[in-house]
Amino acid sequence: MAVYLPKGTRDFLPEQMRTRLFVLDTVRSVFSRFGFEPLETPAFERIETLTGKYGDEGDKLIYKILKRGAGAERGECDQALRYDLTVPLARVVAMNPDLRMPFKRYQTQPVWRADRPQRGRFREFWQCDCDVVGTKSPLAEAECIAVALAALDALGLPGAVIRLNDRRILRSIAVAAGAADKEIPFLICLDKLDKIGRDKVSAEFGRLGLDDAAVAGVWDVLTVPDGHDPALDSLEAALDDAGREGVDTLRAVLDAVGRMGVALDRVQIDPTLARGLDYYTGPVFEISLPAGDIGSVGGGGRYDGLVGMFSGRDVPAVGIALGIERIIMVLEEQGKLSSQRTTADVLVTVFSDEQRNTSLSFATRLRSAGVKTDLYLGEGNLKKQLKYANARGYPNIVIIGPDESERGEVTVRNLDSGEQSKLSAGDAVRSLTHS
Amino acid sequence: MAVYLPKGTRDFLPEQMRTRLFVLDTVRSVFSRFGFEPLETPAFERIETLTGKYGDEGDKLIYKILKRGAGAERGECDQALRYDLTVPLARVVAMNPDLRMPFKRYQTQPVWRADRPQRGRFREFWQCDCDVVGTKSPLAEAECIAVALAALDALGLPGAVIRLNDRRILRSIAVAAGAADKEIPFLICLDKLDKIGRDKVSAEFGRLGLDDAAVAGVWDVLTVPDGHDPALDSLEAALDDAGREGVDTLRAVLDAVGRMGVALDRVQIDPTLARGLDYYTGPVFEISLPAGDIGSVGGGGRYDGLVGMFSGRDVPAVGIALGIERIIMVLEEQGKLSSQRTTADVLVTVFSDEQRNTSLSFATRLRSAGVKTDLYLGEGNLKKQLKYANARGYPNIVIIGPDESERGEVTVRNLDSGEQSKLSAGDAVRSLTHS
Repeated sequence: MAVYLPKGTRDFLPEQMRTRLFVLDTVRSVFSRFGFEPLETPAFERIETLTGKYGDEGDKLIYKILKRGAGAERGECDQALRYDLTVPLARVVAMNPDLRMPFKRYQTQPVWRADRPQRGRFREFWQCDCDVVGTKSPLAEAECIAVALAALDALGLPGAVIRLNDRRILRSIAVAAGAADKEIPFLICLDKLDKIGRDKVSAEFGRLGLDDAAVAGVWDVLTVPDGHDPALDSLEAALDDAGREGVDTLRAVLDAVGRMGVALDRVQIDPTLARGLDYYTGPVFEISLPAGDIGSVGGGGRYDGLVGMFSGRDVPAVGIALGIERIIMVLEEQGKLSSQRTTADVLVTVFSDEQRNTSLSFATRLRSAGVKTDLYLGEGNLKKQLKYANARGYPNIVIIGPDESERGEVTVRNLDSGEQSKLSAGDAVRSLTHS
Repeated sequence: MAVYLPKGTRDFLPEQMRTRLFVLDTVRSVFSRFGFEPLETPAFERIETLTGKYGDEGDKLIYKILKRGAGAERGECDQALRYDLTVPLARVVAMNPDLRMPFKRYQTQPVWRADRPQRGRFREFWQCDCDVVGTKSPLAEAECIAVALAALDALGLPGAVIRLNDRRILRSIAVAAGAADKEIPFLICLDKLDKIGRDKVSAEFGRLGLDDAAVAGVWDVLTVPDGHDPALDSLEAALDDAGREGVDTLRAVLDAVGRMGVALDRVQIDPTLARGLDYYTGPVFEISLPAGDIGSVGGGGRYDGLVGMFSGRDVPAVGIALGIERIIMVLEEQGKLSSQRTTADVLVTVFSDEQRNTSLSFATRLRSAGVKTDLYLGEGNLKKQLKYANARGYPNIVIIGPDESERGEVTVRNLDSGEQSKLSAGDAVRSLTHS
């Protein structure tokens, strides 16, 4: 029987799992340090819960699950796999009116999208979200930004920077350009600036019906001076009241972010940043690493409309997501974590059938002392076991032959240095506990 | 829009997540200590990978995923949700012929079964498996048993006991009873002993065609004296060669388990234990807690046939699974972990808009010192914040009013004792770091 994996999915063998567990544990611990609390939701939701939330393109990518029983023959489906972690959060908030607000939760779980698989894009991948539900305070934005940067720092990826904009500023720019009635197409063009450059975006603005003066006016507004205050002052002068509300909010977010210990040169005002246009209602942000072509490793914003879709109540919310798959790729490429090591610190070999029990007892002693200890469970002589140990990369091995056994000793060999020493069993436990 | 969850699924709110994360982290750390390594596989597999592995009843419970595109209209499916963690392991081993054997892996992931939901039975639930692939050595069984008991000990559920039998002993008992040609029905009856008692099982044996003498003979074989050696000697005397092979293996397992530090009174030979009849080929085991009606919290056995179904190679394997959902239920019922606490150690309140920045800076200082710190992000005066803090159960809160702020002090209140003290900011950080 031929065996293979569904397209776009992956197994994570122990070597990959070590990186993934390190990343998830680190991120989880930083999230907790900031007072975010864990939440998990089921892999599948009712189809009605998911559809209509991700646009037409998104809806097509939702995996549906066949009904049981009679409905199955008609191809009916009533459930579907989670597409992201935000809609499930909104459902949880709507279903639990007694949750104390503000509710700060983090969630790290896989999501599924029937997308065309390509390098770095999968049909099953993990998301890693922090959200604050139930407050309009700009402190919430600030905490999301601070926690995301702190998580990247803790992962050994310092120097990540964050670009900041506001949905209301984007709309106001469209209004100023006379494009109020085609706001979304206008902003979709603007969003291409990084990829296709100013000339091509100008040409697209022209195709949307903007005259040359209007286009020049747009670039005028978007070209902001360096520094937070000058940039925000310049936007304030150019925009309408709604845009100025966005500017005020960004001032408050920047102030709070600074108080939260984020170096302010890590935050950049970028009025061209256009993401989640259908979705975000206030500040939007995007995180990138300094190194060249990695692109975004996270982002988020305020979405005050979503929870109300489920609950009818007006529930403000803001969140940030780390692009955990890309972060893992970066860490693996940088080789920072690429140890080929097993999870165990030591392999206790089995010299012979006669010596087996001594090895068993010594392995048990090591484990009781908290040492991560593997015991050779296979058949095969010491030579084969040494080959196994070298291939798997244990830092240390223990050998207990008849001589050692008789004297209550064990041989500890460090596989990196090749050094080995005969020690009393007690000394060996102590030396391996501290290695 | 009415919102609800698919039947048989659950959200895990922060309070539940704290228990679940504690359990999974504890178990994972014990598994690592025994040299088991982490593996994860995708939520869905190709349908052919799953079907035909779980019997007809099992096949009906597999959730199928609708194809994309044209196939969807015809209700076609080519993928299905994982039903357990063993078949995915077998597929991984078959797909990765270069894995070094023995391969010891643990896997803790959710599985899905379209079962009728009932108390304690869900359509999405977590499994928690340890397996050793690639060796026939009874040390592998012993390690599975030792690691499972160590995990339960670490969870604060000591005193779990393990019942031990062997698939070959079961077959041999059927043969001795003259039921070789109806082995499986015979063993299914036997498996009901715990539930329906000896008289009813005898009656069912009768309906299978066993005469009274044969039935009496079965009970004779099954009634073993106390103590491992007497029990195994008694079985050895009654069984055929194949059964005696099983007895020999159990002797070796028991010997190794003892060397691994397991108190031997936690292991019981039970020739009536019949589980995984289609599946296991050697030793089988089941773990239960001493307290009365909880039933099994785990079990496993040797299954030398499964991996070969995928790879064509003969690959022996043995594994044990902890019933993690039941374990969590027991821990919650025992109230051992039922703290209503948030994950944060302290809530820093915001006295007023003027004092906001002082609170922000102090929260940041606490976080830098590693203290799990929540900052009040909502609107509302101190009274409202105190209510919020009490409802959520933070151990400590910090208040910084204008007086404190002026003197560089903060008030720390312990919400359990009600005690509070004004401390310099530095002393407050130190006191909360060690609380």
